[in-house]
Amino acid sequence: MEIGSDLPPAVADRVRDSFARQGLMSLLGAELADVKAGMVTIRLPFRPELTQQHGYFHAGGTASIADSAGGYAGFTLFPEDSSVLTVEFKLNLINPAQGDWLESQGRVVKPGRTLTICQLDVWGVAPGKRTHVATGLQTLIRVQGRPA
Amino acid sequence: MEIGSDLPPAVADRVRDSFARQGLMSLLGAELADVKAGMVTIRLPFRPELTQQHGYFHAGGTASIADSAGGYAGFTLFPEDSSVLTVEFKLNLINPAQGDWLESQGRVVKPGRTLTICQLDVWGVAPGKRTHVATGLQTLIRVQGRPA
Amino acid sequence: MEIGSDLPPAVADRVRDSFARQGLMSLLGAELADVKAGMVTIRLPFRPELTQQHGYFHAGGTASIADSAGGYAGFTLFPEDSSVLTVEFKLNLINPAQGDWLESQGRVVKPGRTLTICQLDVWGVAPGKRTHVATGLQTLIRVQGRPA
Amino acid sequence: MEIGSDLPPAVADRVRDSFARQGLMSLLGAELADVKAGMVTIRLPFRPELTQQHGYFHAGGTASIADSAGGYAGFTLFPEDSSVLTVEFKLNLINPAQGDWLESQGRVVKPGRTLTICQLDVWGVAPGKRTHVATGLQTLIRVQGRPA
Repeated sequence: MEIGSDLPPAVADRVRDSFARQGLMSLLGAELADVKAGMVTIRLPFRPELTQQHGYFHAGGTASIADSAGGYAGFTLFPEDSSVLTVEFKLNLINPAQGDWLESQGRVVKPGRTLTICQLDVWGVAPGKRTHVATGLQTLIRVQGRPA
Repeated sequence: MEIGSDLPPAVADRVRDSFARQGLMSLLGAELADVKAGMVTIRLPFRPELTQQHGYFHAGGTASIADSAGGYAGFTLFPEDSSVLTVEFKLNLINPAQGDWLESQGRVVKPGRTLTICQLDVWGVAPGKRTHVATGLQTLIRVQGRPA
Repeated sequence: MEIGSDLPPAVADRVRDSFARQGLMSLLGAELADVKAGMVTIRLPFRPELTQQHGYFHAGGTASIADSAGGYAGFTLFPEDSSVLTVEFKLNLINPAQGDWLESQGRVVKPGRTLTICQLDVWGVAPGKRTHVATGLQTLIRVQGRPA
Repeated sequence: MEIGSDLPPAVADRVRDSFARQGLMSLLGAELADVKAGMVTIRLPFRPELTQQHGYFHAGGTASIADSAGGYAGFTLFPEDSSVLTVEFKLNLINPAQGDWLESQGRVVKPGRTLTICQLDVWGVAPGKRTHVATGLQTLIRVQGRPA
């Protein structure tokens, strides 16, 4: 399947169901914005509960939506009876994470039977302004025979 | 200053004040458990709001307390008129993040005038059980002339 | 300066002079293939002296040319009286590193006064075939008042 | 098997045989210094052919012996009919890589059936002086049914 192409509704639904079961996404207020083949976007609106000590988004929030976006990007390419776990990720925080919301995109760089590698990017978005705030890489592992 | 040694109360207070201003730590329910020179421990009690889709702690929560622990570990070694920013971090998730609480420790491996490198470790803790759930590395930058 | 645009000859010459002083590039047989603003390409022809135990290029060779490509990509954007050091890099090895030569490209993602972040990519190239073998991220620091 | 304990001679021999087939280790002049269960040490004597532009060891040489040390550390814990591949590694270069030789140690942090995680450390050694020059993390994958 081509990265970025449309998905069968059943696959997108599996992603939405799984996302809805991530308690942390709901606590943070994160929303699944877009689900394509190997490419998932998550949005996180700003609120003071998400900040670090200077009032920007905390890197932990940035990392949370980056990790979930990458994990679900890989998950869209997996067979039905499998689930996804993050093996590791690395994130460079390249600009202050500010804006009305953060938008994180996970994109599969290398799909695989066992391991899948994703690029992670996060932008801070405000009216008329879009700043690249983080870029990273993530290694996922597919776990067979386990509900999503 | 030797890593792990006691800190002047004023320095520990600067860490506590700054931690208290991190909205995300409060939203997650994270607590500053120990503050030593170049070594800071943060605890995160389990609750369903912190989970991923299988009911374990979400990697984003693990990353959030790991990043803060490392950031404050570096911060304890900085002069008073400076603050800390995370340049990048990398985390390997080596066991399912479960337990009554997570405990993250950031420890300075290499202090520096501009850059400071920390090792990050997270354990899942339950009565009689302590599991190493994540290990990572973090690069911090000291920013001069800016409130903590 | 736009990433990928042509450079003043004096800047490209500084890169070539510095590259020529890297003993390791010469030992490996690596060649500077292209020098643009914030984007440098290095080639490494295959020979048995560069292999790991299965006969592919060793990850250390891949890492060597990736690190140099990224370092010089950053260096092209630095003022004349400064030099570059690698703070850290991370590399995912996504396909077996084989081919007639490896081609590594370093590309500046975020230039900065102190820190510069690069994306690193390496391809294995054979007649009619180009395989993405590694992708990574690198953090560079600019050091002032030191020869290149 | 406890990390750092002695190995059956046949296992240590498999490591030495495989190391001897890594063309790059021989080109660099690297030597296998110690092979224990989950812990391998490689030495790289200084010579001008290994330098970057300032005359220190090039980060690519540091990375090469760090990657091999970690890979073989994992390999010591694998069953006989399997081989090791590096999935990814990350290295922080924390001090100038200088000395009469570099010494890299790979140490298994988390062994696993599929994935194994290692800590990587490199020191620069000179008479009476031992400097920590790099620290990193590495993810390995075990490949079944393939000669070492």
